[in-house]
Amino acid sequence: MTGNIFGERFRIVSFGESHGKCIGVVIDGCPAGLELAEEDIQKELNLRRPGISTITTQRIEEDRVEILSGVFNGYTTGAPICMIIWNRDIRSEDYESIRYTPRPSHADYFAYVKYGGFNDYRGGGRFSGRITAGFVMAGAVAKKLLSKILGVEVTAYTLEIGGERAENFTLEDARRYRYENDVRAPTIDAAKRMREKILEAMSRGDSVGGIIECIVTGLPIGLGEPVFDSLDSDLAKAVLSIPAVKGVEFGAGFKAARMFGSEHNDPFTIENNEIRLEKNDAGGIVGGISTGAPIIFRVVVKPPSSIRIRQRTVDIRRRIPVEVTVSGRHDPCIVPRAVPVVEAMTAIVLVDHAIRYGFIPPLIKNI
Amino acid sequence: MTGNIFGERFRIVSFGESHGKCIGVVIDGCPAGLELAEEDIQKELNLRRPGISTITTQRIEEDRVEILSGVFNGYTTGAPICMIIWNRDIRSEDYESIRYTPRPSHADYFAYVKYGGFNDYRGGGRFSGRITAGFVMAGAVAKKLLSKILGVEVTAYTLEIGGERAENFTLEDARRYRYENDVRAPTIDAAKRMREKILEAMSRGDSVGGIIECIVTGLPIGLGEPVFDSLDSDLAKAVLSIPAVKGVEFGAGFKAARMFGSEHNDPFTIENNEIRLEKNDAGGIVGGISTGAPIIFRVVVKPPSSIRIRQRTVDIRRRIPVEVTVSGRHDPCIVPRAVPVVEAMTAIVLVDHAIRYGFIPPLIKNI
Amino acid sequence: MTGNIFGERFRIVSFGESHGKCIGVVIDGCPAGLELAEEDIQKELNLRRPGISTITTQRIEEDRVEILSGVFNGYTTGAPICMIIWNRDIRSEDYESIRYTPRPSHADYFAYVKYGGFNDYRGGGRFSGRITAGFVMAGAVAKKLLSKILGVEVTAYTLEIGGERAENFTLEDARRYRYENDVRAPTIDAAKRMREKILEAMSRGDSVGGIIECIVTGLPIGLGEPVFDSLDSDLAKAVLSIPAVKGVEFGAGFKAARMFGSEHNDPFTIENNEIRLEKNDAGGIVGGISTGAPIIFRVVVKPPSSIRIRQRTVDIRRRIPVEVTVSGRHDPCIVPRAVPVVEAMTAIVLVDHAIRYGFIPPLIKNI
Amino acid sequence: MTGNIFGERFRIVSFGESHGKCIGVVIDGCPAGLELAEEDIQKELNLRRPGISTITTQRIEEDRVEILSGVFNGYTTGAPICMIIWNRDIRSEDYESIRYTPRPSHADYFAYVKYGGFNDYRGGGRFSGRITAGFVMAGAVAKKLLSKILGVEVTAYTLEIGGERAENFTLEDARRYRYENDVRAPTIDAAKRMREKILEAMSRGDSVGGIIECIVTGLPIGLGEPVFDSLDSDLAKAVLSIPAVKGVEFGAGFKAARMFGSEHNDPFTIENNEIRLEKNDAGGIVGGISTGAPIIFRVVVKPPSSIRIRQRTVDIRRRIPVEVTVSGRHDPCIVPRAVPVVEAMTAIVLVDHAIRYGFIPPLIKNI
Repeated sequence: MTGNIFGERFRIVSFGESHGKCIGVVIDGCPAGLELAEEDIQKELNLRRPGISTITTQRIEEDRVEILSGVFNGYTTGAPICMIIWNRDIRSEDYESIRYTPRPSHADYFAYVKYGGFNDYRGGGRFSGRITAGFVMAGAVAKKLLSKILGVEVTAYTLEIGGERAENFTLEDARRYRYENDVRAPTIDAAKRMREKILEAMSRGDSVGGIIECIVTGLPIGLGEPVFDSLDSDLAKAVLSIPAVKGVEFGAGFKAARMFGSEHNDPFTIENNEIRLEKNDAGGIVGGISTGAPIIFRVVVKPPSSIRIRQRTVDIRRRIPVEVTVSGRHDPCIVPRAVPVVEAMTAIVLVDHAIRYGFIPPLIKNI
Repeated sequence: MTGNIFGERFRIVSFGESHGKCIGVVIDGCPAGLELAEEDIQKELNLRRPGISTITTQRIEEDRVEILSGVFNGYTTGAPICMIIWNRDIRSEDYESIRYTPRPSHADYFAYVKYGGFNDYRGGGRFSGRITAGFVMAGAVAKKLLSKILGVEVTAYTLEIGGERAENFTLEDARRYRYENDVRAPTIDAAKRMREKILEAMSRGDSVGGIIECIVTGLPIGLGEPVFDSLDSDLAKAVLSIPAVKGVEFGAGFKAARMFGSEHNDPFTIENNEIRLEKNDAGGIVGGISTGAPIIFRVVVKPPSSIRIRQRTVDIRRRIPVEVTVSGRHDPCIVPRAVPVVEAMTAIVLVDHAIRYGFIPPLIKNI
Repeated sequence: MTGNIFGERFRIVSFGESHGKCIGVVIDGCPAGLELAEEDIQKELNLRRPGISTITTQRIEEDRVEILSGVFNGYTTGAPICMIIWNRDIRSEDYESIRYTPRPSHADYFAYVKYGGFNDYRGGGRFSGRITAGFVMAGAVAKKLLSKILGVEVTAYTLEIGGERAENFTLEDARRYRYENDVRAPTIDAAKRMREKILEAMSRGDSVGGIIECIVTGLPIGLGEPVFDSLDSDLAKAVLSIPAVKGVEFGAGFKAARMFGSEHNDPFTIENNEIRLEKNDAGGIVGGISTGAPIIFRVVVKPPSSIRIRQRTVDIRRRIPVEVTVSGRHDPCIVPRAVPVVEAMTAIVLVDHAIRYGFIPPLIKNI
Repeated sequence: MTGNIFGERFRIVSFGESHGKCIGVVIDGCPAGLELAEEDIQKELNLRRPGISTITTQRIEEDRVEILSGVFNGYTTGAPICMIIWNRDIRSEDYESIRYTPRPSHADYFAYVKYGGFNDYRGGGRFSGRITAGFVMAGAVAKKLLSKILGVEVTAYTLEIGGERAENFTLEDARRYRYENDVRAPTIDAAKRMREKILEAMSRGDSVGGIIECIVTGLPIGLGEPVFDSLDSDLAKAVLSIPAVKGVEFGAGFKAARMFGSEHNDPFTIENNEIRLEKNDAGGIVGGISTGAPIIFRVVVKPPSSIRIRQRTVDIRRRIPVEVTVSGRHDPCIVPRAVPVVEAMTAIVLVDHAIRYGFIPPLIKNI
């Protein structure tokens, strides 16, 4: 089984399991000469760390990154960068009971079949959301490259949870507020409403889903390689790799199905002698390449499958129906913790394409 | 610039331009021993052929496939299969006028910047929907492999156009009716309503968007390679490579944002001593691997950018605003012709994963 | 079966069979803006064309290249470039008799097993040296990129045939004379001696092997990506892909086995204030990256397996020993026609690495 | 900079530096269900461990492997396997002095230019032979897969050192004796002669080169994917990735240059009703695919560049000639320690191809 490597010129390799020794990532293709410290990684990791709020899992992990290779004297060397966090607060006994009574909508049963029962099922093993810590570590490097070299900023936030949607906010609001509230909403008001929805579900042992929006500013025209490695194709692949994400839409997205061409088309105009787009229903990507307008996309995040409510499942050895209640420590809503993961995967795709197109050189000097 | 190769073990290579000599595709990785004739390809190609209905472009192309390599004595040889269709009905003069006045929401301007003006702009060149004929040719081979070896069927149809949505139909309906009506709807009634929407937009020189739904039956458990080459990731990448597709959602899709875990989770049950899912809000994929339930996803197709209505654009040399009316022969709605393309890209992904997982062998004997 | 795509950023896709419709290649990743005409390709193709000398196969093929895509108004567009030559002078009846009596040291039998008999066996099918015409077509583009943008020249020539070795010549001699004699030797004297060896073997219905040396000048320091995509690794893979090549050595090569470190090491020196190497036993590559000195390597080319002399083989259906005499039109020595193929594969690797390292940009302006 | 990932279906990712924290490798694509313990890896690692003989470097490293992921309850899970050894006996002060006076025929200077001085130069950093410990760790898994599932054995040994060549031995000899003597020779006599050559060079502060031969038995017909991913192409790329290897030849190798086709061709014969080859000058690969005969190839290993003898180099800042004596602890001959590395890279290529061709399944049951 392969599938743990992503990208072409800025490639990331994911490894580790939820209840194994560690979660790790290798970056193959980081340019030499980027100033990089563990603290650059840590601050991003902290944004998805568990146990830091009443609405997230109570598993407590310090998630302290250790850079094992590829950085020397405070700068990237051009060699592969391996980074890990060690797993500490493991209670694997929680999972023994459900080995043969798969939890609905978890990968338990399907992985059991695919891997012949050899897969590490503890805490979901390789299918756990915890592996996205590796995405965030690699994304931290990608975000730094984008910001330092291209002035590109990636901003994701919670647009909607349990039907509560953020309204009337600016990108500036999102940048300011999203990491100041524990649902990662772009406004204080939305944060409150969303938080209540989560608490309401929690109180019943249930979970809720939501939508994350991501905006990228500062990209030049021309990133993306038609036809198959188009920017939207690669972003879609990247975000669908995040567990619990079930869909993605760019710009007007699914609303485009009910629009006319005359509405959806983004006219050109001249502004300060520059060619600009009057609006951005395309979401910053046309023909698979960046248009210079902000990239805007949304992903839907399903409600977490782990709920304390009793569910129907089967005993896979005895082939009889049974009921299951998922114990363990789980998030009632994964949206907030998925926000930095969406940013990470987005940044990884953009750096990859920026390197392909020559916008980020293989060697960074005097930045 | 790369980006014209897709897949790992069943790889397709796309080449050709809208107004160049031909549109072509190479398949690298087709197993040896598959009975294959040009007619197998042709019947799929005919489903996306232009000029066959009053609601499609009036460009008349015979689109007759020619297999140049990889087939010998009626069977695939294991060598790369190159297939082309020649372009005939080209009226490139239609495009000279708009070279420096880019059409809104076409790739014209962005490609001009990216490729320094060297790109073939005639008919959109490499960005034309016409290149998807190559996808369909490769998809025809993939569909035959899936069907013959695994009994897997891929069925896409038009779910919605201009707000008119097909309702109350079965998969069986879709299979029977979609290619009997020129909008590829799953019911006659829906076809009528959608057709009217298209004609209405056409009459104003405008265009409309829609939604395609795709269902795959017969897949075993276990296709898809977590974490990055998960089945949904690869399908998302595949369908976003189709021009005009702006989003994709699996199973409950964006509705999952407003669902509770207790609603969205698909319980297991026992049916005839087999482990089954009671419902399929996951859309046939959990943890990135196939669940044995049908794969269900939807893609949104934007309204075609080519409209006869006057639009605001700019003269890119003189940097002044101008207006443009897109002449040429265009589709008022691309949804119907995109239906076989969605099927093709889906089949290509599935064959690739089936080969990776050993479900399709490198050599086919006695099938 | 895959395996027909080579490279990362300048990727070539090979297709076609010896007695099929055509031999072709697609380049995915050629920068936009390179002036390119069919004549650029043709002049390279002519150097490996059959039937142009008494010491090559008498199969007469015009081998006239047709560019099917990727070039517009005389320049590359950044889109994939498909090029083909059509097969004309086919006498497939020559091969029917040997279908079940495989020719020794040809791929006939092994391909029969691998592909279950579905492979196109005519003229060796996919295993024919004729497919290297595709390598040469792609190589012509690569050589032009190297020469125009980097001033890099790739020069291969016949170093040895049948034990006759070229001596006392300069690179300048090789450049001047190799294509003026039909064995591609670097001196007139060597050409004569080698030619006689070939004629001698021909007269007996036998064949001879030889060695090709390749020198690349003008490369900057730094091409090659350690550890696995090192420059020597990729060159080795590239030249071993040429049928009949059985080995490769860089710089001092196999002689290094009998050298001391104090002999083999290339000391540094200062020349005109530049850091230079005093000698070049490393062959221009150290640690997998180019040193700025010329790259020098040699490949050994086995004697062609097709000989008129009677050989022992088996009837694979009846499982009895039989004898075979290979009729058809064959080269008594493949070395001369492999010279431009070695240059082509070398150039393809170098362009790929030059693009990866940013030495060749994705868009060529004002060259 | 990329280049640290090798393979298609059994992919290995290399990371770590000579004097960094660790040397590591990730395997992406190991089938689930292989019994695997750290001891399986350790026994291979011990074969290339430094400091275990008077003729190897005196750097003492325990090189104890730690499996960080991908193994659960004693079996591989199908998830990526990360393995590391920690670096302990580091004396980096040895290297400070030569930072700006590059050692001849080391990558020091070329890496300095390529990576702008950001590379970790201590002990050669990423260019150190020590990174091949990662190859050996991955190779141990590959060898176990080959042996358990296919009965394939990979045997490398020292054929020649400093001109002393092993003669008159069988493969059985090589298997028995190579790891019983510290030069890894196939006979006791050869070991003695080679050892003396090494000691002689050592005594002068010099180093010597040699040749490793590798034989693979038990392979079925059909591995290798023509044309570019042919078995010899991929083996060549693999072994040229080993630092100090400067060439490779298959079967008769460079001798083929002086052979006639009638000599070099391997006739078929019938033996016990099986089709067999009478001899094996092809080295087990024809047309890029395995023939069922043993694969035989040889690689040349240059004399180590680190010698205590005074050499001419330059001060790269002052641009003046200086002299350098390489201190530190180095191998006077790298051949013996490269033997297990050649086996490892060979096994990795073969497993990759065996998976591609379906000979090794994605899930191992009841082995």
